[in-house]
Amino acid sequence: MNKQELIENIQKKQSFLCVGLDSERSKLPQHLLNEADPVFAFNKAIIDATAQYTVAYKPNIAFYESNGIAGWQSLEKTVSYLRSEYPDIFLIADAKRGDIGNTSKMYAQTFFEQMNFDSVTVAPYMGYDSVQPFLTYINKWVILLALTSNQGAFDFQFITSQDGKPLYQEVLETSSKWGNNSNMMYVVGATKAEMLHSIRTIIPEHFLLVPGVGSQGGSLQDVAQYGMTKDCGLLVNSSRGIIFADSEATFAETAGIKAQELQKEMAELLQKYNCFL
Amino acid sequence: MNKQELIENIQKKQSFLCVGLDSERSKLPQHLLNEADPVFAFNKAIIDATAQYTVAYKPNIAFYESNGIAGWQSLEKTVSYLRSEYPDIFLIADAKRGDIGNTSKMYAQTFFEQMNFDSVTVAPYMGYDSVQPFLTYINKWVILLALTSNQGAFDFQFITSQDGKPLYQEVLETSSKWGNNSNMMYVVGATKAEMLHSIRTIIPEHFLLVPGVGSQGGSLQDVAQYGMTKDCGLLVNSSRGIIFADSEATFAETAGIKAQELQKEMAELLQKYNCFL
Repeated sequence: MNKQELIENIQKKQSFLCVGLDSERSKLPQHLLNEADPVFAFNKAIIDATAQYTVAYKPNIAFYESNGIAGWQSLEKTVSYLRSEYPDIFLIADAKRGDIGNTSKMYAQTFFEQMNFDSVTVAPYMGYDSVQPFLTYINKWVILLALTSNQGAFDFQFITSQDGKPLYQEVLETSSKWGNNSNMMYVVGATKAEMLHSIRTIIPEHFLLVPGVGSQGGSLQDVAQYGMTKDCGLLVNSSRGIIFADSEATFAETAGIKAQELQKEMAELLQKYNCFL
Repeated sequence: MNKQELIENIQKKQSFLCVGLDSERSKLPQHLLNEADPVFAFNKAIIDATAQYTVAYKPNIAFYESNGIAGWQSLEKTVSYLRSEYPDIFLIADAKRGDIGNTSKMYAQTFFEQMNFDSVTVAPYMGYDSVQPFLTYINKWVILLALTSNQGAFDFQFITSQDGKPLYQEVLETSSKWGNNSNMMYVVGATKAEMLHSIRTIIPEHFLLVPGVGSQGGSLQDVAQYGMTKDCGLLVNSSRGIIFADSEATFAETAGIKAQELQKEMAELLQKYNCFL
């Protein structure tokens, strides 16, 4: 998916919601465990209930890998289902990959060819040649970790360089020259929304993937205030707050309600900050 | 595997060789493509030919993932085969994982429970809570990226902090307090062997996983000179230089010869630097 299509979908749905499919097997509603593929059955129901409020889905690869081959099958089925039933969805492989060039090339093949994801999250530590292989695909995206939502972000991402810049700013400045705002996005945690103002001085137009709203405590209002661009420029993720809001037979219905609540708040924010005008 | 067992295996085999199973399907000898599982057939032959010279194997997960479910099956079969036939082998999942705590916990389950690896490579960017879930397992190891062998290492790993330290040193100093030298190792590329001297002042006793000898241009002599401890303290990886040294029907025999050459050089270095005395 290219940038223009993504923006059009956001405008059409009045939503910049990404639903995180962190579909941990042990957390699925009991009645689904009789299904042939409980994880896929869960994802399918969640997707059908939330797709009208959602522009992106983000399977977290760890939750599939941890089920071995069965998990990988659930993931492939989920991607195929989204591709056939909801072709306007932006698909994110949340994989946090990154390795030397010949290895990153294999990871890119996995997520862009084996499975038809639009984008993959990548860790920056190994630098340019670990990211470049993902950038050789047309209309595919790298979503690079910049400032993550977790407590451990403070261990290294805020180390100040001799130039007076925290590491995450060095990552933004350096890496933004590797691609452009049509093939790179950045992960910036909602729990650090106040940093979005300075981040926008470095990358004024890149899309940001923002985790951490909901379970992790981040505020959607703050994220929009400091991070929104004239084209929205945000994909805000919610995982557990939507998919595990209800563990009973009504889980999908509840997920739909939670997604709709966020979509309504997002529509108001798109209006408040004069997007698409 | 615990540290004492690893050291005993190194002493017994007079080798600190790790063979990287970067078993890229398109590079396999032609005659193997008729096998039901060419990647596993290749790995099995390579393992049988090299195991007597080798203390560790390191499947690079990217090369399996990129074949989808079939690749995951090849990986599981390879791990099972190593576990049943060569129980004294140290097994490294070269996966470069790392995410927020609840996700890293899933990655740890994948590699330590679903598959019985001894260790997994982890990227440090997301800090303590992205690493900690891997450290909760007895006799399992995190191998954290510190200073990688690729050109991109210069993008961020050498950024100097206001304390005058390059980032990779900050990573070593901070992260070495998260575990100990019985459950953490570090990746330090052979292409930067001259930095091993200062690295050893920070982590004098941790094992190092050293890629980059061979195809990437690093020197085994330099690595031993600057990085070896009284217990060896090194696992030096070679991938392409062994497994793809020969693309004909003799590929396994050649791999055995290449592994033996490295083992002999390693035996001399263990003696030269008075290990195990």
